[in-house]
Amino acid sequence: MTVEMSAGTIFFWETFGTAILILLGTGVVANHVLQRTNGNGGGPLFINIGWGFAVFTGASIANPSGAHLNPAVTLGLAIKGSTKWADVPIYFAGQMLGGFIGAVLCWLTYKLQFDKHDNPSGTLGIFSTIPQIRNTVWNLVTEIIGTFVLVGWIVFNPPGNAALSYAGVAFVVLVIGTSLGGPTGYAINPARDLGPRIAYALLPIRGKGSPQWGYSWIPVVGPLVGGTLAALLYKVAV
Amino acid sequence: MTVEMSAGTIFFWETFGTAILILLGTGVVANHVLQRTNGNGGGPLFINIGWGFAVFTGASIANPSGAHLNPAVTLGLAIKGSTKWADVPIYFAGQMLGGFIGAVLCWLTYKLQFDKHDNPSGTLGIFSTIPQIRNTVWNLVTEIIGTFVLVGWIVFNPPGNAALSYAGVAFVVLVIGTSLGGPTGYAINPARDLGPRIAYALLPIRGKGSPQWGYSWIPVVGPLVGGTLAALLYKVAV
Amino acid sequence: MTVEMSAGTIFFWETFGTAILILLGTGVVANHVLQRTNGNGGGPLFINIGWGFAVFTGASIANPSGAHLNPAVTLGLAIKGSTKWADVPIYFAGQMLGGFIGAVLCWLTYKLQFDKHDNPSGTLGIFSTIPQIRNTVWNLVTEIIGTFVLVGWIVFNPPGNAALSYAGVAFVVLVIGTSLGGPTGYAINPARDLGPRIAYALLPIRGKGSPQWGYSWIPVVGPLVGGTLAALLYKVAV
Amino acid sequence: MTVEMSAGTIFFWETFGTAILILLGTGVVANHVLQRTNGNGGGPLFINIGWGFAVFTGASIANPSGAHLNPAVTLGLAIKGSTKWADVPIYFAGQMLGGFIGAVLCWLTYKLQFDKHDNPSGTLGIFSTIPQIRNTVWNLVTEIIGTFVLVGWIVFNPPGNAALSYAGVAFVVLVIGTSLGGPTGYAINPARDLGPRIAYALLPIRGKGSPQWGYSWIPVVGPLVGGTLAALLYKVAV
Repeated sequence: MTVEMSAGTIFFWETFGTAILILLGTGVVANHVLQRTNGNGGGPLFINIGWGFAVFTGASIANPSGAHLNPAVTLGLAIKGSTKWADVPIYFAGQMLGGFIGAVLCWLTYKLQFDKHDNPSGTLGIFSTIPQIRNTVWNLVTEIIGTFVLVGWIVFNPPGNAALSYAGVAFVVLVIGTSLGGPTGYAINPARDLGPRIAYALLPIRGKGSPQWGYSWIPVVGPLVGGTLAALLYKVAV
Repeated sequence: MTVEMSAGTIFFWETFGTAILILLGTGVVANHVLQRTNGNGGGPLFINIGWGFAVFTGASIANPSGAHLNPAVTLGLAIKGSTKWADVPIYFAGQMLGGFIGAVLCWLTYKLQFDKHDNPSGTLGIFSTIPQIRNTVWNLVTEIIGTFVLVGWIVFNPPGNAALSYAGVAFVVLVIGTSLGGPTGYAINPARDLGPRIAYALLPIRGKGSPQWGYSWIPVVGPLVGGTLAALLYKVAV
Repeated sequence: MTVEMSAGTIFFWETFGTAILILLGTGVVANHVLQRTNGNGGGPLFINIGWGFAVFTGASIANPSGAHLNPAVTLGLAIKGSTKWADVPIYFAGQMLGGFIGAVLCWLTYKLQFDKHDNPSGTLGIFSTIPQIRNTVWNLVTEIIGTFVLVGWIVFNPPGNAALSYAGVAFVVLVIGTSLGGPTGYAINPARDLGPRIAYALLPIRGKGSPQWGYSWIPVVGPLVGGTLAALLYKVAV
Repeated sequence: MTVEMSAGTIFFWETFGTAILILLGTGVVANHVLQRTNGNGGGPLFINIGWGFAVFTGASIANPSGAHLNPAVTLGLAIKGSTKWADVPIYFAGQMLGGFIGAVLCWLTYKLQFDKHDNPSGTLGIFSTIPQIRNTVWNLVTEIIGTFVLVGWIVFNPPGNAALSYAGVAFVVLVIGTSLGGPTGYAINPARDLGPRIAYALLPIRGKGSPQWGYSWIPVVGPLVGGTLAALLYKVAV
């Protein structure tokens, strides 16, 4: 079943919802990383809970467009047949723009902290993922597995979870963070990683470091492959 | 759609619900800050979870009045058209009184700890927010963005979240804490900040410090601006 | 509205549910306190989350009897008129027996750890509450306020929370722990405190300390007063 | 009431759901234990929350087969009469295979970290449980009590929790972890422990230690006894 939606509806709500998601998601990392914040050194659970409920907030706001907020989710739902292929570029555009806007809002929220941070060249990790150990094959494997779990949960669409609404996907993102986020920081979403990376490259952040473009394709390709595999398994299994 | 409620209903439930919210919210900070408590040094996630479920508890009790508990929410809902403008002063009065009562109850709960605390002049932060770095413009920006997310989520009123009831808004407040609370301590609610600040000024707390009136208008004006912006976006978008 | 239930139903389910509640609640403290456990030094949030979901688990199992699991709740519901006064002693008996059984099960679960603990005389705090600063009046005040929030939430019985079922009360107990548990350890339940204290006095725990009978009446009387005040406010307000 | 399901349905969904459960569950321990991860030293609450929502994710995916994911649950439901005895071996086979697959996926996710870990012989605890203090009788007691709570909650099947769907069982597993997981690491599931232990024995993990086969029967027998006792109590009580 595909739902008819206007391009404007899709674009507006995907942009809005992804901006909220990325504002809150990059925000929790900023709170943990930057000095002179209330959350400095909050730790991994603090970050994982922040990202989980960032998804809850952004996704429930973006309900009118189906709340994809993630090109890997859109691709998986298109393969499944729940989203029209013609709408896919509109989803992608809104998600990328939302990711960029969210990152700008995060920078504005923490402007004073960015200006005072002792290690300003180390602030890329607030916006985009950086692997703990760099390795093309294994970083891709980790991102593929993480996104497979996320998109798998969404395309199989567990019927008993309707009452939980977007809390269900928040729980899934929370546990992907605690459990699969160790090696690469669980991008599991090209717009979550590339949009803020572009913002990092463009914003006048004091003393900022490299956007590490050499790594940037892995958190795009890995999630798209993982989402595709989950949708293909769905088509085989159901 | 506006709902007819008597002034007494609004005033009683807003006072009661805000008192519970502020008792539990200032309570978790007291537990973290004060010495000789079970929660001393509980950390940022401890505080953010406490405030999140403080909202759950206060808001679900205040269900009969619509559970605003926050002048920025009332203002946003009035702009949206869900609350009558004539009721707005009644909401504000109940919220301010509730904030004051909640702070008094927190002080009574932790009376022995206040009396033994080694740094009594540093106890304002239990009651009201203090920015990590003082700057009028950027502190306002942070409070505006934080409240925009809160009131945005409420005025857009995601339809799929009805079954979650007040757990949904608790999750949103939790993630605003983890993600946007770093610089200013996320007042995002004039009654949450000003009511307890007045209580701090009036209560005979041993060795207490300054209520910092010079900063006190920022956590009032910032949230009202943020709530207004969220409601205006709603009117443009929907 | 009162519900007709047989004495056997009440007694069985209150005993069973309270035993599970106390097993899980004392268990999380044992895990935090005792050496050579996986949870040693887990911290305040760890303990508060454990107690919160201990209530979820015990209360959802005890659904057939109304899941009071707490004499202060039973008293509040009797004053409200939801529970028959003739059933009150049956509730109390099941709750006290369940508290005792749960404490015994906790001791069996951690038997090896109790036998190897370096400070065996300091194990009362696993079973029963101990104030951080001893003071009859203020310890009572703290327990009254904490129980007022719990029983208040239950007797006002927020209608929007039905879909959350026992997760709602778990969130309330979690936040009472984070926010009001600092001074006295939030007994907020006579059966939760007195049942395990009796077990501590009777069990052959290696090198155990005093059950501190002199304090034991405060976590009984304080919660009963707090529950009564919440129910009286309900009768006045609704 | 028993539900008719084809053997293929049971086998596929139990394998799939258990694989996701074990991937996420062993993943959170890997994230905590291994060096050069984002979750290194995340602590007990981090691990317990990870396992809790691992159950949420795996169980909601496996909804078509009833989402047992645990031989102790299958055995309890067969004794209760909700599952046909003829289907029990199919459940067990899927659960064991899923446990194995999940462990392999965890190793692939953390491949770089396993290859760089300073203490590679200490990695068994990522896959399978190890008691803090070895003692056949008391380790069995701990696993029996923990599984009794899990299977008890499931077989008594609290009716008010339907809207929570698989979040309810996630909360129960979370609190079993915080409260009963201290001594033995809460296997409470033969497939969760034995499947990954076989994977640990077979996988070419760099510098790995012993699979400790001498202990391996306890997290199989203890959970099966605990699940049986819970189901027998159900038959007596209801």
